[in-house]
Amino acid sequence: MTPNSPKIPYGGDYNPEQWPQEVWDEDHRLFARAGIDTLTVGVFSWSLTQPAEDIHDFGVLDRTLDRAAAEGRRVCLATGTAAVPPWLARTYPEVNRTDFEGRRHRHGQRHNFCPSSPAYRRLATVLAGRLAERYAQHPALLAWHINNEYGGACYCELCAEAFRGWLRARHGTLDALNDAWWTTFWSHRYTDWDQIEPPSALTEHWRGPDHTAFQGITLDHRRFMTDALLGCFTAEKEAVRAHDPDTPVTTNLMGAYRPLDYHRWAPHLDFVSWDNYPPLDAPPTRPALAHDLMRGLKDGAPFWLMEQTPSATACRDVNPLRRPGELRLATFQAIAHGADAALYFQLRASRGACEKYHGAVIGHAGRDDTRVFREVAALGAELSDLGAITLGARTPARTALLFDWDSWWALEISDGPSRLVRYTDVVHRYYRAAREAGADVDVVPVTADLTPYDIVLAPVLHLVKGDLAERLEALARRGGTVLATFLTARSDVHDRAFLTDVPGPLAPLLGIRVDEWDARPQDVVQPVRFAESTAEARLVFEIVQPRGAEPVATYGADFYAGTPAVTRHRFGAGEGWYVATDLDRSGVDLVVRRVLARHGLIGPYAAHPAVETATRVTPDGTSLLFLLNHAPEPVRLTAHAAATDLLTGKRAERGEPLVLDPLGVAVLRPRPGSGDPGVSE
Amino acid sequence: MTPNSPKIPYGGDYNPEQWPQEVWDEDHRLFARAGIDTLTVGVFSWSLTQPAEDIHDFGVLDRTLDRAAAEGRRVCLATGTAAVPPWLARTYPEVNRTDFEGRRHRHGQRHNFCPSSPAYRRLATVLAGRLAERYAQHPALLAWHINNEYGGACYCELCAEAFRGWLRARHGTLDALNDAWWTTFWSHRYTDWDQIEPPSALTEHWRGPDHTAFQGITLDHRRFMTDALLGCFTAEKEAVRAHDPDTPVTTNLMGAYRPLDYHRWAPHLDFVSWDNYPPLDAPPTRPALAHDLMRGLKDGAPFWLMEQTPSATACRDVNPLRRPGELRLATFQAIAHGADAALYFQLRASRGACEKYHGAVIGHAGRDDTRVFREVAALGAELSDLGAITLGARTPARTALLFDWDSWWALEISDGPSRLVRYTDVVHRYYRAAREAGADVDVVPVTADLTPYDIVLAPVLHLVKGDLAERLEALARRGGTVLATFLTARSDVHDRAFLTDVPGPLAPLLGIRVDEWDARPQDVVQPVRFAESTAEARLVFEIVQPRGAEPVATYGADFYAGTPAVTRHRFGAGEGWYVATDLDRSGVDLVVRRVLARHGLIGPYAAHPAVETATRVTPDGTSLLFLLNHAPEPVRLTAHAAATDLLTGKRAERGEPLVLDPLGVAVLRPRPGSGDPGVSE
Amino acid sequence: MTPNSPKIPYGGDYNPEQWPQEVWDEDHRLFARAGIDTLTVGVFSWSLTQPAEDIHDFGVLDRTLDRAAAEGRRVCLATGTAAVPPWLARTYPEVNRTDFEGRRHRHGQRHNFCPSSPAYRRLATVLAGRLAERYAQHPALLAWHINNEYGGACYCELCAEAFRGWLRARHGTLDALNDAWWTTFWSHRYTDWDQIEPPSALTEHWRGPDHTAFQGITLDHRRFMTDALLGCFTAEKEAVRAHDPDTPVTTNLMGAYRPLDYHRWAPHLDFVSWDNYPPLDAPPTRPALAHDLMRGLKDGAPFWLMEQTPSATACRDVNPLRRPGELRLATFQAIAHGADAALYFQLRASRGACEKYHGAVIGHAGRDDTRVFREVAALGAELSDLGAITLGARTPARTALLFDWDSWWALEISDGPSRLVRYTDVVHRYYRAAREAGADVDVVPVTADLTPYDIVLAPVLHLVKGDLAERLEALARRGGTVLATFLTARSDVHDRAFLTDVPGPLAPLLGIRVDEWDARPQDVVQPVRFAESTAEARLVFEIVQPRGAEPVATYGADFYAGTPAVTRHRFGAGEGWYVATDLDRSGVDLVVRRVLARHGLIGPYAAHPAVETATRVTPDGTSLLFLLNHAPEPVRLTAHAAATDLLTGKRAERGEPLVLDPLGVAVLRPRPGSGDPGVSE
Repeated sequence: MTPNSPKIPYGGDYNPEQWPQEVWDEDHRLFARAGIDTLTVGVFSWSLTQPAEDIHDFGVLDRTLDRAAAEGRRVCLATGTAAVPPWLARTYPEVNRTDFEGRRHRHGQRHNFCPSSPAYRRLATVLAGRLAERYAQHPALLAWHINNEYGGACYCELCAEAFRGWLRARHGTLDALNDAWWTTFWSHRYTDWDQIEPPSALTEHWRGPDHTAFQGITLDHRRFMTDALLGCFTAEKEAVRAHDPDTPVTTNLMGAYRPLDYHRWAPHLDFVSWDNYPPLDAPPTRPALAHDLMRGLKDGAPFWLMEQTPSATACRDVNPLRRPGELRLATFQAIAHGADAALYFQLRASRGACEKYHGAVIGHAGRDDTRVFREVAALGAELSDLGAITLGARTPARTALLFDWDSWWALEISDGPSRLVRYTDVVHRYYRAAREAGADVDVVPVTADLTPYDIVLAPVLHLVKGDLAERLEALARRGGTVLATFLTARSDVHDRAFLTDVPGPLAPLLGIRVDEWDARPQDVVQPVRFAESTAEARLVFEIVQPRGAEPVATYGADFYAGTPAVTRHRFGAGEGWYVATDLDRSGVDLVVRRVLARHGLIGPYAAHPAVETATRVTPDGTSLLFLLNHAPEPVRLTAHAAATDLLTGKRAERGEPLVLDPLGVAVLRPRPGSGDPGVSE
Repeated sequence: MTPNSPKIPYGGDYNPEQWPQEVWDEDHRLFARAGIDTLTVGVFSWSLTQPAEDIHDFGVLDRTLDRAAAEGRRVCLATGTAAVPPWLARTYPEVNRTDFEGRRHRHGQRHNFCPSSPAYRRLATVLAGRLAERYAQHPALLAWHINNEYGGACYCELCAEAFRGWLRARHGTLDALNDAWWTTFWSHRYTDWDQIEPPSALTEHWRGPDHTAFQGITLDHRRFMTDALLGCFTAEKEAVRAHDPDTPVTTNLMGAYRPLDYHRWAPHLDFVSWDNYPPLDAPPTRPALAHDLMRGLKDGAPFWLMEQTPSATACRDVNPLRRPGELRLATFQAIAHGADAALYFQLRASRGACEKYHGAVIGHAGRDDTRVFREVAALGAELSDLGAITLGARTPARTALLFDWDSWWALEISDGPSRLVRYTDVVHRYYRAAREAGADVDVVPVTADLTPYDIVLAPVLHLVKGDLAERLEALARRGGTVLATFLTARSDVHDRAFLTDVPGPLAPLLGIRVDEWDARPQDVVQPVRFAESTAEARLVFEIVQPRGAEPVATYGADFYAGTPAVTRHRFGAGEGWYVATDLDRSGVDLVVRRVLARHGLIGPYAAHPAVETATRVTPDGTSLLFLLNHAPEPVRLTAHAAATDLLTGKRAERGEPLVLDPLGVAVLRPRPGSGDPGVSE
Repeated sequence: MTPNSPKIPYGGDYNPEQWPQEVWDEDHRLFARAGIDTLTVGVFSWSLTQPAEDIHDFGVLDRTLDRAAAEGRRVCLATGTAAVPPWLARTYPEVNRTDFEGRRHRHGQRHNFCPSSPAYRRLATVLAGRLAERYAQHPALLAWHINNEYGGACYCELCAEAFRGWLRARHGTLDALNDAWWTTFWSHRYTDWDQIEPPSALTEHWRGPDHTAFQGITLDHRRFMTDALLGCFTAEKEAVRAHDPDTPVTTNLMGAYRPLDYHRWAPHLDFVSWDNYPPLDAPPTRPALAHDLMRGLKDGAPFWLMEQTPSATACRDVNPLRRPGELRLATFQAIAHGADAALYFQLRASRGACEKYHGAVIGHAGRDDTRVFREVAALGAELSDLGAITLGARTPARTALLFDWDSWWALEISDGPSRLVRYTDVVHRYYRAAREAGADVDVVPVTADLTPYDIVLAPVLHLVKGDLAERLEALARRGGTVLATFLTARSDVHDRAFLTDVPGPLAPLLGIRVDEWDARPQDVVQPVRFAESTAEARLVFEIVQPRGAEPVATYGADFYAGTPAVTRHRFGAGEGWYVATDLDRSGVDLVVRRVLARHGLIGPYAAHPAVETATRVTPDGTSLLFLLNHAPEPVRLTAHAAATDLLTGKRAERGEPLVLDPLGVAVLRPRPGSGDPGVSE
């Protein structure tokens, strides 16, 4: 249920309330020059729309939306509840959060509300309802944007009480809870719900949120806080729905954001939107992974790119500038991965406060002759030309990567074997290997339907829950390939170790047994010998005893030299692969390409490391192949099929040269009879 | 209004209250041997002078001052209010500070008083008054020393209330305040003064005092805290003045101390004094910059060196020993830059507590045959020989460097473009270049009269306030040179961006326009090509479009290769220079020497990098040239003019060899008709 | 009063309460296979043994002990008071600790009780008494284990009041306290006991527990907290003794654990036990030092190794695996140094919470065919074969190393000269030199009887207390050697500097005078020239003036080049050595070997750096020489005497080859007439 639009909505966050009327006129003039048609409005407007508890004032919003409508623009309207106004924080001190250190905050910053505070919930919901009542029928309204970038956590007494209620609902009895958390360890057996304290620096934690005495309570608290914030979202959404049954509702997520399990949120969003701020020195597969994770939230449905910077961020220690062409490339990358909108933070730079140096389409001097404005405008024109063709298109991936917040949390709060293993680093290395080999990848929850896939990657999937093991076995039985790694399948939904050989319920599928594992500092390198070459491994070295599996690679040093580091197990018509150590990129590439090759999923341009490919299939069945050149040099390809580039109109026959400019993009539509451009021959 | 003295006062902090009477006798015997004539007394004496709220006991001070007078020594008498006695902290808990984290402290350490506490203010003021009443006429009294090293901050409710009062006085209305702080951003519009919370870890800040959501509130809070502590000083000073209308009053400052804007303090001090503890691995221009900053506080008037260590500090992780000769060199450096006193912390080493390993003239064993004592005594003899000649002398600088606490704060609390740029590092690089080229430099506030100067340096002067731009233009029009750098002139007094091209009000003078800027980590090096050579730049790279200026140097790499990195703009009879990136030392030296050369300000010994020169002109018009050899080897110069070395009595004719010992010093008085020794020929 | 046992007790922590009955059966089957005869039971059982304030329930313990007895195993029974149950923390919030930052904690983790809380003291004591009443006569009972790993600190008001009481008892009057702490410095003179606050982040400290304004109060607070926790121990012990006059009582210590001065604890323990978790990359002399420190607590009596991991730890960032053979080697090392028991944490791995990845004899899968289980079982068999021979044996050391918690604390809380000097690093370097040269070393308190020794090492012994100087002089007079180092003998028991030349009361013995000292960062290296070779020194460089001593080595650089860095002073028939700087390992080795050689204490295998030797003399006078090969390669020795290896039964004649396997061990019993195997020829 993505908002209806005749083309990719293009625009971004717009804060006219910060400026006098004459600036508004200039804004719309510049929007027109830049092809901007969509404005995200009101994100931090609470102190204006409700200057006192008993006063609502929608004057600025009225003028903003009316003007937008008059100019033919659409509005993504925020409820504005992500930063409480000063009067509210002062009147209801309990609205301010209590932090992990136990300190009650006072008014300041943003994202500063306690999710369990009745005052906040009441006032935010009333405001959302009033907005919906007022603007549901407004011609400019395109979508609802609840709150903003939900995140963080609160540890106040109200949240503690809500946590206890959540635990009762989850565990039913204290006996069940004591068993789940293994409280007999360290004399923690609870005899009353009131004895349970939220896990914080004052209770179960030391050295910050990742060091806990009881993984069970910390996992449950993260789930609870996910749900508590989600409760704020759904309350506002219900208030909107009471007045507006149709307009799609979203909130902007943050990609691979650890604190919130977005898989719990996904069913409640009408469509997914997210803010893409990759570290600008990250490889392009980092934002690609995030895009695919976001697309995976709602079963492959397109999403909105709600924010990106047109030039630079401000919040980092060092804020590099996007080089010429990078913005366009990043925007087409988003579209290639499923984005059906391209929005910026921000349209006009704030004059003061902490984001005044954040990139904007319109800078402080208000010029339209800056490099950045020119690039934004050129991209606006391209998107206008592109029209509706990509809207609603979906990705025909045959490879799934299991992404699991529970496993992320459990891995990183684990005492032992190694604090140095970071979930998304390992996940990214497997994702990157598949993507650079030309495979489309769905990044999906462990509950996803796996029947569409040939391959399932399960890197460091620490927890195995529900019937996942059975479903993976079923996939392998029918010919598919499952790949798991070290520290996969170590514990159950409560992070209790399986009382069987490692890797627990996946052991039959993988055909191995692991009794012990070594962990070493970053500077200890273990050679891993494949038939073809030798890769390097680090951090964790599991010692594998094959129980049906055959070795694919072996350790080259230490007392376990010669034992398997990578194994393959024939299972039914398929295979179970296990990588027992933290292989470097070359090793992971080698393993993943072998798995992809088994299923014919190596892409036609896999030999060009800087060229990213991605396929989207439009609602009418047209398969579009996006080619993205991430190198600052041109790249010369040989067309694998006859196709037309939608951006240039150029045609290429199979076998003809196909040149991508530095940071260049092509969107290839195959010509009839030329075969699927997304699949290798 | 520096205290009257027939010679440079020599001595330091003296704490006889820690010792029995027989030690006092020994003290004075050793003082005589070392030429010590001035004692700073009573700095932490409150718990002795007022052992209970209703008891004052001046017995120890009486004996100390009487003894000093009897021995012919003078006393700089402290009010002793910098550390509250335990009984006071216990009786009035609100006197203890609340820290940035919101934690109310209890008794401990020093500098531990809340500046807004009425109890503290009342008791400190009464004590100061009682002391003045008792000792105003004492023959030993030379100066008043209020409190000690004011600093730090308090975040208690009393300070919050005082902050609100200060804001009312500054901004007048909430509308004005909301506009100044740009509170529409992030829903911060205040509707009542009571809603304003001091910016702290519990409100607007994260990751410490430099990360704030609102630069405006944080800047105002630093100004407020500066004024709040200043209020403590002026209250005590008034209490002293009620009984003693004449004796000069000071408090010891700390050089380039970020928390307090000393320019706000300067008018209230009768004379400036400061404590010089440079990191001993710092180049000599670091303490020189601090000396010049301190001298600039009161328009070039001489100051007191209130503290330095005779040997080592104690408070650092590593406390190196001053090598033989370093103490003498550092002392003459202070005098060369305007010091009219040379005092130590401390005369006798404390037996216990955290400064027992801090260097002292007299160590724990009480010896007078240590190396340190011998060097102190030899220096005492030299200063006696020198007599009054340097007293009251002033520095005839034609180069001014603008030093601005507001810019320092704004730069370092800014989100974007780079957290890695540190104000004093950049300022020091420009200062060092000018000093090593032989120019005397006044380090002055932005409000200073600029008419005496040929050159004004404005490195990273982030804020441009008041009529500064006009005064800089006036200086250039009449032939002067203004040099600004990257991140200069970005925002106004409230840290709101100028709504014009960068560099805001300085753009006309500098003849450039900047639309965008790149920021990169420390390890990214950008070559900057001058006609003569290539320098290196780092951290921030502004992309300059000349609008009248000509390029002096260009970037050598990246997409902005070939665009200007340094520019010069003819403006009236003068020039505006802009350095658009964080140039390394060689690049800054090159630029600054070109600017100095234009005005004939390269010194006669500029080719000798280890030789520092500084000029002071005595009240009778004699120009003294200090030569300081910072190298551990002798240096052979050729005298640029006929002069006599006041320290040795040696004469040199122009063109004759002039040898400075390792770490050696000369104070050259020109002979009639020999020309000004401080200016190159 | 080590518990009676016919052989080395072998086993470890056992938590059957976490498991159903069928697992217990399996446990005992596996214990039998592994030779496990001793179980540590009930360590964290409080929430089970007392599920509510008015209910005690010993059912699980009854079954555990009865079953152990039935299986022929013995139990080390814990009182279980180291982690309070949730109900207790909720009912008596004051039982939870207040941390150094002043934050009252709530229930969580373990070691979480305030030692001054009457509720905790009462409930823990009652519980201990009830346990003793119930199990004193139980046939399985072998020893009492009070609480667990006492440590940490509390800063609540109850502790503050207890601290004041402790201070009254120690100092008697406020005048004495003010003098001891040198409170005249910084206006700290106390006029009422209530004014004294525990030193914390809210009072005297900054940058954590090692930065204090007053060393005196911080030292006293650490002594107080040592005593406060000891008070918890003795209260429980008394409660046990009321019902059980005979069974030995211990608590498990933690080796060189800085927070608690174990020398204050030693008299109250019936026997010492400790938990050995060396960083696995530490040299073997690190755990050896800890063993010898533990053995030194009770005048050389054997101790129990209460915990070690059979494979890996879990609590570290990186938890390496013990390689094959390392567990056996570490266990024999413990025995070689005086251990009369070898116990593990843990026998069966916890299923959940923060130690589930901690190594265990029995893993989650419950197997007996893992490498770790096999090694444990093989070692169990060896220990059975060894029988009683080592029990009660003592170490005939002629070298003493003075280890002093007061000096450790004072050195590391000192402001100046260098924060980089770490007490145990320097101590270890001297200890290692002696051990690697083959000398047995007793690590003893400064109050120890020194008459048995030829050599006393006093590295960085910052405080010199009591009559130590006289006793060291007596030792030297009769021919012994005393070695002291930089920063030895700087201050008295209150950390007040001696008012004499450095090194204070040791100056006559050492024949030197030190007036000044340099401190430099880690990267500054000073060459130190010996006659034989040149070593490197770092961090602190004291400048020594000989006053009777002769130089052994001199500094090679800087202005003190050529002055002595190491000196030797003939004193009576003996010598006083001084090392004035932080010599590297080669320099310390050279100095220590010269001292050892003087007394003929270089061992017979000192030329083999990987071979550790240690001697124990059994109650019947047999001298056993342990040979431990820490290298992963075999080592070939030449037997220095005729002996039989107790582990293999092999005999070697003097001069014959003696081969140790990689990580191999031999326990040599000399054959009659072959001389003492522990002494070089």
